[in-house]
Amino acid sequence: MDRNDLSQHISTQYNEELEDIRSKVMAMGGLVEEQLESAVQALVEMDADTAQRVVESDYKVNAMEVELDEECTMILARRQPAAGDLRLIIAVIKTITDLERIGDEAERVARMAESMAGRAFDKGIMAEMEHMGELVQDMLHRVLDAFARLDVQEAIAVVKKDEKVDIKYDSMLRQTITYMAEDPRMIPLALNMLWAARSLERIGDRCQNIAEYILYLVKGKDVRHTHLDQVLKEMEEERGSR
Amino acid sequence: MDRNDLSQHISTQYNEELEDIRSKVMAMGGLVEEQLESAVQALVEMDADTAQRVVESDYKVNAMEVELDEECTMILARRQPAAGDLRLIIAVIKTITDLERIGDEAERVARMAESMAGRAFDKGIMAEMEHMGELVQDMLHRVLDAFARLDVQEAIAVVKKDEKVDIKYDSMLRQTITYMAEDPRMIPLALNMLWAARSLERIGDRCQNIAEYILYLVKGKDVRHTHLDQVLKEMEEERGSR
Repeated sequence: MDRNDLSQHISTQYNEELEDIRSKVMAMGGLVEEQLESAVQALVEMDADTAQRVVESDYKVNAMEVELDEECTMILARRQPAAGDLRLIIAVIKTITDLERIGDEAERVARMAESMAGRAFDKGIMAEMEHMGELVQDMLHRVLDAFARLDVQEAIAVVKKDEKVDIKYDSMLRQTITYMAEDPRMIPLALNMLWAARSLERIGDRCQNIAEYILYLVKGKDVRHTHLDQVLKEMEEERGSR
Repeated sequence: MDRNDLSQHISTQYNEELEDIRSKVMAMGGLVEEQLESAVQALVEMDADTAQRVVESDYKVNAMEVELDEECTMILARRQPAAGDLRLIIAVIKTITDLERIGDEAERVARMAESMAGRAFDKGIMAEMEHMGELVQDMLHRVLDAFARLDVQEAIAVVKKDEKVDIKYDSMLRQTITYMAEDPRMIPLALNMLWAARSLERIGDRCQNIAEYILYLVKGKDVRHTHLDQVLKEMEEERGSR
């Protein structure tokens, strides 16, 4: 085996390592998706068993984060990645932090569902909660898709969708305040519902974070704290100038 | 200049780069501390002007995060750090994310203060809020100290202190629920107070995150999601076996 073959071999193995990391991020994302889906279901159906399962499975998400974090550190130390590979590793380190926190928020939603299990709540507000849950689940699903396909357009769509979640959250908040004022005995229950809504809203924010890491990964540009309209405009200009 | 001198020179410059990153993290931490202090003051005094200043200064924290992120990426690409240096860079990348989010939470507290400016609220609950603000400010101050001095004992003290914040938060929550039930007209105001309390509680969580990165940096061990008692026991065993 001459030197050329060896470097070819090393490079192939390196590619496999990077591929392995990407597929593990997708697996972690899939698990977090399941956790979120079950948490929303537990909340809407006020079902303690489903809620309990979510709480008990959170350790799996945490374990995957620690494992991926270690793999990324190993690659940084051994492979000394540059350019796009380095951006991938940094994007992964950031993405798994947000995925892990989405898992935590899903666990919070499940804990709220558990504490409200068997109780009845205002049907209109529950319908709003269900819709908010669906919006956030769709955001998470799409941002993971965008990550898998490095799809910038999809990532931008996710960022934009977060506004819908915020609007839904505000509307739900107003209705719940009215509901509490009408029947103060319902305040503790209503607050649990608000905490759950707040967790869903934060999950939307975190999906938005991940979408921004994808833009950074693909475009090599840090778009956090900048106006998305600006990024979109620049991208269109780039396309126009090609 | 022979080769040896050159490598010495490069190494000195590299050390300076690492030192620069550490001092910038401290500067960013100092700014976030100021933001938190002003936000708590704005809340306790229901002072719109101070609140406004916090909201307007948040961009500075964001800018520092982006700058530090870029510097870390440059060092990873150019210097290919190993072992302790690599852990420092990874700890910094994670720490500045949490610092930036602490800045965001301080901004949320300030926005709540702004929306409540000039109103009066239950004195007992306000005293609890003030105490909670002090606890969280102390946590942030100490975790930044621990970062500057790479002080493991101090980092562990911060992790432990988070329990006090959680207890204070629960007590404040219960009092506020009672208050809302007694006077439903106060519900919107009381909810703003609860959101502010929630933000303070999350700041405590984020200080705990940073403390864990310090342990990772110093001990080379990922202590997230593990029981702190276990880590403490292992550390004492290590000390005993020396």
